[in-house]
Amino acid sequence: MPGDIITLLTDFGTADSYVAEVKAALLSQPHGATLVDITHEVPPGDVRAGQYILSRVWHRFPTGTVHFVVVDPGVGTSRRALAAEADDHYFVAPDNGLLSPLPETARFVELPVPLSASPTFHARDVFAPAAAQLAIGTALTHLGKSITDPHRSQLPAPRVDGLTVVGEVIYVDRFGSLVSNIAGERVAPGVRIKVVGTDVGALRRTYGDVEPGQLLAYVGSGGSVEVAVRGGSAARLLGVGVGAEVRA
Amino acid sequence: MPGDIITLLTDFGTADSYVAEVKAALLSQPHGATLVDITHEVPPGDVRAGQYILSRVWHRFPTGTVHFVVVDPGVGTSRRALAAEADDHYFVAPDNGLLSPLPETARFVELPVPLSASPTFHARDVFAPAAAQLAIGTALTHLGKSITDPHRSQLPAPRVDGLTVVGEVIYVDRFGSLVSNIAGERVAPGVRIKVVGTDVGALRRTYGDVEPGQLLAYVGSGGSVEVAVRGGSAARLLGVGVGAEVRA
Amino acid sequence: MPGDIITLLTDFGTADSYVAEVKAALLSQPHGATLVDITHEVPPGDVRAGQYILSRVWHRFPTGTVHFVVVDPGVGTSRRALAAEADDHYFVAPDNGLLSPLPETARFVELPVPLSASPTFHARDVFAPAAAQLAIGTALTHLGKSITDPHRSQLPAPRVDGLTVVGEVIYVDRFGSLVSNIAGERVAPGVRIKVVGTDVGALRRTYGDVEPGQLLAYVGSGGSVEVAVRGGSAARLLGVGVGAEVRA
Repeated sequence: MPGDIITLLTDFGTADSYVAEVKAALLSQPHGATLVDITHEVPPGDVRAGQYILSRVWHRFPTGTVHFVVVDPGVGTSRRALAAEADDHYFVAPDNGLLSPLPETARFVELPVPLSASPTFHARDVFAPAAAQLAIGTALTHLGKSITDPHRSQLPAPRVDGLTVVGEVIYVDRFGSLVSNIAGERVAPGVRIKVVGTDVGALRRTYGDVEPGQLLAYVGSGGSVEVAVRGGSAARLLGVGVGAEVRA
Repeated sequence: MPGDIITLLTDFGTADSYVAEVKAALLSQPHGATLVDITHEVPPGDVRAGQYILSRVWHRFPTGTVHFVVVDPGVGTSRRALAAEADDHYFVAPDNGLLSPLPETARFVELPVPLSASPTFHARDVFAPAAAQLAIGTALTHLGKSITDPHRSQLPAPRVDGLTVVGEVIYVDRFGSLVSNIAGERVAPGVRIKVVGTDVGALRRTYGDVEPGQLLAYVGSGGSVEVAVRGGSAARLLGVGVGAEVRA
Repeated sequence: MPGDIITLLTDFGTADSYVAEVKAALLSQPHGATLVDITHEVPPGDVRAGQYILSRVWHRFPTGTVHFVVVDPGVGTSRRALAAEADDHYFVAPDNGLLSPLPETARFVELPVPLSASPTFHARDVFAPAAAQLAIGTALTHLGKSITDPHRSQLPAPRVDGLTVVGEVIYVDRFGSLVSNIAGERVAPGVRIKVVGTDVGALRRTYGDVEPGQLLAYVGSGGSVEVAVRGGSAARLLGVGVGAEVRA
């Protein structure tokens, strides 16, 4: 049963009225759901960053959770508005790849856009009302017509080069840690990690395994190889960001 | 009936303990209300920005909502502390113009300031206890004596110059979009929008109607003319901010 | 009875998925508790700032509140993971001094760290599950074995130099106000406050007692002497921060 929790993941920031306008729309239905902000600080229009964050969190919430996911540079154009269901989780999002982390078994519907909707704020006028409907238990198929071809754009996958796995940085967090797309289990014992040519050594367990200010690689809490500086920022020290090559 | 939702709108930021101290005071009464942050990132002391954000959101919440609105550069001086009611919404705020968006039918009372209140933190010691009282259903008139002369300072209104409506930027959002005070319905079809002399063309529907990096004008989600850059910042591109002239 | 409120105080920022992963873990138990963010903007790894903020807020929440407090530069090392109880409040935190504000009567247990826990994210895998247990009423002593030697590191205390109290700045807030460790009641009437040699005059009541742009000292809402600039930043004007000497 949907309805206990609604999560919000956007690029709206928290300084303006936009998140509150969405929440007012979400709360206009008496669903009793708890609103949980995932983040509103996705870089403006950065669908890939939104997709990465969604991939980390959605399945950690209880079944029945409704996920409101809006990073929508194409708002008001012909890009479709979607609602979806996967593993008893519910979603609303623009059809721009944000929902790519959902499994192949996910079901999708296209949300109608009412004429009264602001062409620049479907979050408030299309997605929030749909999420509120899902939260009160309205069936997915009542919200729109089924579609089977949602936009899917997987995050880049690592390739193999001889004995080396070659991936890249797919996210940089607030601490300046570089999150790669190389799964921890793909790294053989003793293999040294390199970021754009800088050797950061074999995998460690945690920050405390090196001295303050030193680089280290480890399997991060999302399961992939990360590179950080103890008490500092690897992004700043190495001068690299999303897209930088990581070899393992 | 008040009590299901308490919104918070302040300039306290979210890095310090201030918002939490307010929430602790709000939660000291067993009202069961959901706390919804509007924003805490109003620029310090910027009553006009707080007023603008309040004007966009308060009426979107369900009736019975209690709005905690504190941008209070005059805290501890002789400026009055207010509680108010309008259209079955409830408010607490300093008497400095923040509540100017309320309709003429609003009722106001002056809150007493206990001697024990910190002279620099009425938010915690005066406004939060009053909001908690409103949330448990205490009548407005039990909170203080009625007043009929609250401070009102309307946001600037546009003027007419021949066939042109001359307004100004009243808010800049996180995306660098310039929000004017010219209502969309006042713009005749085909009229071109100018910002401090830069012609940004006739009104478009949405960002996707221009190429990335280009300026456009459109009727924003608040109902007034806005000027933005697709995938960029109009404030940065044009080098303008609040107060800049907009002609339509 | 614990369980109505869980507060969160971390250095995770709000841009990444970390806070949401913690909240998902907290919400995996059906405790019905309200989650209240204290702040997630403690400077990365700054245990002392986290300790200061905790000292201001924990006792303001209702009894039964569970406080999740994680600033954890030593995550994954041999530093212990703690749960605690004091005055009918409950706490989870790493054993690095964060819980120093708790009274001497506090009881502590050491939380076991499961092998499955991510060595870099005990917040999600150790502390959040323990907080959720506390929220559903699990006894503290069921969570781990009692310890009596938690790490305690008090914030610096002022000293007396003749007739002068010599303290220091222990926190700088978003407004650039300098919070000292000198309790307001220790300042005799008429005594002038000095910050690194700059005389800011005798204690005032509130910002409005001086002209815009001027420095003032007053007893802040936390009970200690603060130095601010009306409508500005004392930290910027004086070029000082945490550790700067304050004389009263």
